[in-house]
Amino acid sequence: MTLADEQARTAALLDRLAAIGADPPGITRHAFDERENAAHALAIAEAARLGFEVTRDAATNLYLTWPGTDRAAPRILLGSHFDSVRHGGNFDGAAGVLAALAAVSTLRAEGFAPRADITIAAFRCEEAVWFGLGLIGSRAALGMLPPDALDRRRADTGLTLAEHIARCGGDPAAIAPGRRLSPAGPIRCFLEAHIEQAPSLIEAGLPLAICTGIPGNIRHAAIRITGEHAHVGLPRRFRHDAALAGADLFTALDALWTGEEAAGRAMAFTIGRFHTDTTKHEITVVAGDFTLSLDLRAYDATHLAALEQRLHAIVAEVATRRGVTIDLGPRNAAPVGPCDPALQASLAAAASRIGITTMPLGSPASHDAANFAAAGIPTGLLLIRNANGSHNPREAVDPADLMAAAATFAEWLRAEAAA
Amino acid sequence: MTLADEQARTAALLDRLAAIGADPPGITRHAFDERENAAHALAIAEAARLGFEVTRDAATNLYLTWPGTDRAAPRILLGSHFDSVRHGGNFDGAAGVLAALAAVSTLRAEGFAPRADITIAAFRCEEAVWFGLGLIGSRAALGMLPPDALDRRRADTGLTLAEHIARCGGDPAAIAPGRRLSPAGPIRCFLEAHIEQAPSLIEAGLPLAICTGIPGNIRHAAIRITGEHAHVGLPRRFRHDAALAGADLFTALDALWTGEEAAGRAMAFTIGRFHTDTTKHEITVVAGDFTLSLDLRAYDATHLAALEQRLHAIVAEVATRRGVTIDLGPRNAAPVGPCDPALQASLAAAASRIGITTMPLGSPASHDAANFAAAGIPTGLLLIRNANGSHNPREAVDPADLMAAAATFAEWLRAEAAA
Repeated sequence: MTLADEQARTAALLDRLAAIGADPPGITRHAFDERENAAHALAIAEAARLGFEVTRDAATNLYLTWPGTDRAAPRILLGSHFDSVRHGGNFDGAAGVLAALAAVSTLRAEGFAPRADITIAAFRCEEAVWFGLGLIGSRAALGMLPPDALDRRRADTGLTLAEHIARCGGDPAAIAPGRRLSPAGPIRCFLEAHIEQAPSLIEAGLPLAICTGIPGNIRHAAIRITGEHAHVGLPRRFRHDAALAGADLFTALDALWTGEEAAGRAMAFTIGRFHTDTTKHEITVVAGDFTLSLDLRAYDATHLAALEQRLHAIVAEVATRRGVTIDLGPRNAAPVGPCDPALQASLAAAASRIGITTMPLGSPASHDAANFAAAGIPTGLLLIRNANGSHNPREAVDPADLMAAAATFAEWLRAEAAA
Repeated sequence: MTLADEQARTAALLDRLAAIGADPPGITRHAFDERENAAHALAIAEAARLGFEVTRDAATNLYLTWPGTDRAAPRILLGSHFDSVRHGGNFDGAAGVLAALAAVSTLRAEGFAPRADITIAAFRCEEAVWFGLGLIGSRAALGMLPPDALDRRRADTGLTLAEHIARCGGDPAAIAPGRRLSPAGPIRCFLEAHIEQAPSLIEAGLPLAICTGIPGNIRHAAIRITGEHAHVGLPRRFRHDAALAGADLFTALDALWTGEEAAGRAMAFTIGRFHTDTTKHEITVVAGDFTLSLDLRAYDATHLAALEQRLHAIVAEVATRRGVTIDLGPRNAAPVGPCDPALQASLAAAASRIGITTMPLGSPASHDAANFAAAGIPTGLLLIRNANGSHNPREAVDPADLMAAAATFAEWLRAEAAA
């Protein structure tokens, strides 16, 4: 068994995942549904080939465990997710599960024996598009799911998260804040590989980055601005234009980002939904209502809290200036996830030993790893070079780069996890 | 017959128009369709009562003519329109036809005999919402309809304007640029009454304004901004955010308006449609495309042309700054309509003689009258006090104010149109 064999096996698994998720012009693997279940079945078949134990928790997250010689030793957990956005690509999430599988498959073929259990996890529903809340599987595994999350409905099926979990054979009643579901016993660390969702590695010409931290975020899925619908002939002084207030909000946040970036304080915001009511708006009617989504993120909890205060100040200023009301609506938050400095060093060293040059990089996106970091579990994250961003059909990962992540994990495990 | 009788008759006609257009939460009188036809039938019944001649032109505009003693003398034309926007109010358009009818009905009861023919017109399809182009009936009557307009489709029926005209019994083949359809012979002047679509008269505490001019406009119904869809994690420097470019465009035009207003140059712009693709946008995806409508208006043709140049400069600047393409799409224009100074003076004098105080006011909105002004026909426009703007169900006109317009027309005709 060679790395070339693993690369061929991984490519075949990616092809089968693409077939499962085929939804032109991209890939859709719905969370807590047939397609995610089919991806799990593929991973379970791999576990059977490798002789690993297969378990699921109450949230139906999947765990494939290579038993160690000391089963009481703190477990090493690796993994990511299989669900995708609608019409996304084949790599966001799946690449991380497959890289971990390829790493342990390589070691298994070498006759490696781990001291502690090594568990590969496939977390459910990492993407926020399904229930308006991201990282659901890993939140549930760690007892970090917000209490109201089980009642959220998936827009397309109309079923609640609890109903979807039950339909996948899980036990929503066992999911509760503070109750950890993930495999029994202590966890030594969590390692994830994920495709980079920005072109920094493309720009740098490197296959892998060692993540320095994962941003926390604050999300408002539906901010409603209410002004007054009015005739195109209404003079400026009488208008309460909700769409113009939306434009003000967007440009004010853009100015905030510009300033923070110039000051060296990493942040980001995205307004992905930004719209008048397309069933009612007219060319000759000043818009009386407007809706937008907001994702605001930063790498430091104090900084993120300060940015949220700035958001509130901007909202108040725009509302006053334009004579509109702005209702931020429901708020979701994901914690900041600092990556463990010792793991950053040992992952970089492992890569270096096998001839792979890496660079440190803050993750632009949130990942399941962030929950482990927030839970106080030492966390490491490899970012894999990827062209064209993610959440779109043009995600493009060089198979060699995916195998670079697998080889780095394998080398790290050789050094850190031998019996 | 007294003004009180006319007020009661007008109120009854308004009630019947409201019943024809009933479409909770407002009034919808579709252009070139059953409901506009039903309104025409109501006006034709009034003409029968008054003994007037009834004619229609090839575009199915309706003309009710009180024959004068000198049928070769240049005709006095009064009128407005019956169509409404969707879920609009009962007064926008209809109030003007009814005010003209009440005026001539009053004179008829007095035994007044006009020297020249007096014709009351109900123009088709004044509202731009039906075919993406406004003032269609009066444009067609004056030979000013753009050549491609007959092929436009009404979004709800899918039928072309030509098909709708034919279904109403008209002759679309007879409609051509430069071919005037309106009643035969010379036209001395065109007089319209229309509800004010802003609260300036409410603010001033006056029932009527003498319009000083009607703005011309330039319209782009669907400006498309194309950037790149991208993951929420994409750093700022890599983004081509189409929605942010839309926000820039809106705030830049707002700054332009602020500056023009401060400099005393009257203009307005409205972006009524302003939206990401609501079938595809996501909270975690930077928007790669964005659509907006634009209505830009001013009272002076040179000023309007200069503003269009400013628009093009702003579009170019935003496209460069955000790395997006901006396609303005189809352009429509309505001419500036200056109101005749002598008519302004004689209408104000007529109102004053019967105890009605008026004020001069630029019309914030475009009206059929603008086409007559652009065609070189002396044009006068009365604006009627109206609460809550127009194009919404809360339009509110005091019956006494509507009768003030009728009485002003009647008094003007007494002085100007006697045999």
